Amino acid sequence: MNDILHRVGITASPEDVYAALTTIDGLAGWWTEDTRGDSAVGGVTEFRFAGAPDPAGFDMLVLDAQPGELVRWEVVGGPEEWIGTKIRFELFRADEYTIVLFRHEGWKEPVEFMYHCSTKWATFLMSLKRLVETGKGEPAPNDVRVSNWH
Amino acid sequence: MNDILHRVGITASPEDVYAALTTIDGLAGWWTEDTRGDSAVGGVTEFRFAGAPDPAGFDMLVLDAQPGELVRWEVVGGPEEWIGTKIRFELFRADEYTIVLFRHEGWKEPVEFMYHCSTKWATFLMSLKRLVETGKGEPAPNDVRVSNWH
Repeated sequence: MNDILHRVGITASPEDVYAALTTIDGLAGWWTEDTRGDSAVGGVTEFRFAGAPDPAGFDMLVLDAQPGELVRWEVVGGPEEWIGTKIRFELFRADEYTIVLFRHEGWKEPVEFMYHCSTKWATFLMSLKRLVETGKGEPAPNDVRVSNWH
Repeated sequence: MNDILHRVGITASPEDVYAALTTIDGLAGWWTEDTRGDSAVGGVTEFRFAGAPDPAGFDMLVLDAQPGELVRWEVVGGPEEWIGTKIRFELFRADEYTIVLFRHEGWKEPVEFMYHCSTKWATFLMSLKRLVETGKGEPAPNDVRVSNWH
């Protein structure tokens, strides 16, 4: 098994970061503007990307949501490499920051697409940081381009 | 073992990207301005960070350097978690891009510091991209702040 790991610190409360991870409006503000579905525990949130190859997005089953502390998803729709992988956002305070420990775990193989997704997750987590700190993130389709795979 | 993986695409030739990975001036233009030592194969390149805790930097033994294709380092000085880990930059062409497949491999444990380093590597690789594409990167001490750990 192979995991993607990231850590960002956001100068805001855990509650504000949690809201950006658990509401459709929050998620649409940093990952992709086209976010739909049910973001409550047991629901499936649908993330869509205009212009992306089919299946053009990810469906996340919300496994767990503990206010100000933890959000966990399981990927139930999307590219084959993602199906069955899990995503975890762990939140805690350090200094004047809310730390987000991010893990996208359970990749079967460290394929080239995993390298790409790791870099994209970093830029999207920086977008989450910007959204919560300034009110404006950089969600798709206006996300940071990192390569020919966008 | 645990690895940090990233993939960026740079609109420049493999030779230009290679130069930014194998010359002191190139390295100082995207990772840290205070880069010294010997960047040839068998040499040790020293990366220093003003204001960072002691040991304030990383010493990299250059294991391999194949023009336009591959650069490999072994960490021989720096934080305990880094010692003995290896870093690899693999270069190839795709579309109008030079792709950099980056791997920092051999972490003993997925400690919180590894989460941090993964995100920092992403921002430094985006700095490498900017340097080669525009002539100006974002090396330390003017690097992107991602958290309380900088």
